[in-house]
Amino acid sequence: MARKILLAVTGLDEALWQKEIERLAPEFKIVTEITNDADDIEYAIVWKQRPNILNALPNLKIIFSAGAGVDHIFKDDTLPKVPIVRVVADDLTSRMSEYIIWQALDHLRQGVRYRKQQAESLWQEDKAQPAASAVTVGIMGIGALGMDAAIKLQMIGFNVLGWSRTPKNNTHIDTFSDPDGLSEMLAKTDILVCLLPLTNETHGIINTQLIARLKSDGPLGGPVLINAGRGGLQIEADILEALDNGSLAAASLDVFEQEPLQQDSPLWAHPRVMVTPHAAAASNPLAIIPHIFKQISAYERGEALENLVDISARY
Amino acid sequence: MARKILLAVTGLDEALWQKEIERLAPEFKIVTEITNDADDIEYAIVWKQRPNILNALPNLKIIFSAGAGVDHIFKDDTLPKVPIVRVVADDLTSRMSEYIIWQALDHLRQGVRYRKQQAESLWQEDKAQPAASAVTVGIMGIGALGMDAAIKLQMIGFNVLGWSRTPKNNTHIDTFSDPDGLSEMLAKTDILVCLLPLTNETHGIINTQLIARLKSDGPLGGPVLINAGRGGLQIEADILEALDNGSLAAASLDVFEQEPLQQDSPLWAHPRVMVTPHAAAASNPLAIIPHIFKQISAYERGEALENLVDISARY
Repeated sequence: MARKILLAVTGLDEALWQKEIERLAPEFKIVTEITNDADDIEYAIVWKQRPNILNALPNLKIIFSAGAGVDHIFKDDTLPKVPIVRVVADDLTSRMSEYIIWQALDHLRQGVRYRKQQAESLWQEDKAQPAASAVTVGIMGIGALGMDAAIKLQMIGFNVLGWSRTPKNNTHIDTFSDPDGLSEMLAKTDILVCLLPLTNETHGIINTQLIARLKSDGPLGGPVLINAGRGGLQIEADILEALDNGSLAAASLDVFEQEPLQQDSPLWAHPRVMVTPHAAAASNPLAIIPHIFKQISAYERGEALENLVDISARY
Repeated sequence: MARKILLAVTGLDEALWQKEIERLAPEFKIVTEITNDADDIEYAIVWKQRPNILNALPNLKIIFSAGAGVDHIFKDDTLPKVPIVRVVADDLTSRMSEYIIWQALDHLRQGVRYRKQQAESLWQEDKAQPAASAVTVGIMGIGALGMDAAIKLQMIGFNVLGWSRTPKNNTHIDTFSDPDGLSEMLAKTDILVCLLPLTNETHGIINTQLIARLKSDGPLGGPVLINAGRGGLQIEADILEALDNGSLAAASLDVFEQEPLQQDSPLWAHPRVMVTPHAAAASNPLAIIPHIFKQISAYERGEALENLVDISARY
């Protein structure tokens, strides 16, 4: 018997959702209209669902919102008492690659320099501007996201290396694993892109010691950091110190130890830091579906759900 | 007797060119100032050459432009009737694509907005941030340079269209030609990239009338212009007016009607204009010189020249 998931998305492109779920989770049968199969439905993906629909599912385990907001769910005052999960789809692959390429090119093509010159009405070319082919991007955390960015960066002309905890077999990109491999990659890296998941092992990994292992004599006046993973990966005090003592030339940070970034953080005003408000990979409906099935798998392995809604607070 | 080549490059680093030619083609004697050896000069590498210089070389076989553009050569109306070859070097092409992708992403990913927010220590995500797939880049001038940028932009996720005077057969990118095709492309274009050669026909083509034909209701708050071709293609007064009356959302300009850009130009301080000092694809002698001598060898073996300029069309 196929496992069943309810899809009750008012105002969204139901066919598009359905197709994407079928592609990503073919083990589930999608129910859009409940007939006599209410008992079999374990999960529900909803957006402005009709009242009473969810209440009719005795074996429902989790309600997923099809978007970041959940106020639409609470308009139904007959909700069953099951966990409600809101989706923060911050991992849409192509959006992340857009951000990484954007920032890598801004460092390569001297965005800080040219914007400063423009502010001074100064016409002065950078004669020593290196080509992408003279620059190596090292990606820490080369999963699906990292690999997409890697292939695109390589096509633009960058040399690209990747590191992950577990070995990857990929013919397109030179990848490393284990601690020795990390050292080898860092020593060759001009632009370090961090996309690692936040775990006990990776917490605070971007620190003075790691920065010191980056290539120091590359063509960008020192190594550059792009962190689009999680703020908990970085020690901001160490990054600031590295920027000021010259062991780091510049940084693009989309994530921070504390978000929103504190008003008094020196990162805001640092001339060689680009701050974005955790916006590298913004929400898109098609990005939400993989996120939901990742959550279902985690739940079924007995792990805690992320982005759980506080039902009493209703968000 | 050493064979002779004229090097007449105004505004470029002559010593660097000289050194690289000596290294790669030691069989040639480089002439930078014609004295009594005019008869011996077979080839000329020029950039903004003084008028009458080339006309004085009775045995000149080929004129090479030191860059992709050749409009500077035609300012001399005493040109001898010999083939003119422009440079399409891989390095130049990929540098141009770097610049175009960098600026297209800066517009897509709201660089101006986020840098302004950073200056104000303001943490605020742009919820309506479109994906590249919601944005169409239209490239005016889809030759070798434009096609390289087009394919890379498409791979990042943008929709890409191209227009050229003569039809192109390409299976990767939808291209248009002739005036009707231009109208059709402009009407679909969110980001207009201009890479046209400067000729009598294209002079001042980026004006109020052309801007008015761009897609006005796209996801970037209005159409965006990226001009990396020639300054003579644009009417800067029209661009400024369009930025201020809302018919243009933003512009990235690497080239200007007068270079260096005049100190009092309002473009410098315009908050939605990115000014770079004609640095999108700097002529790197290290990349261009091998290309020129490869062409000379081919020519002397009796093979056809590549990237030959159509002297009647002046590009």
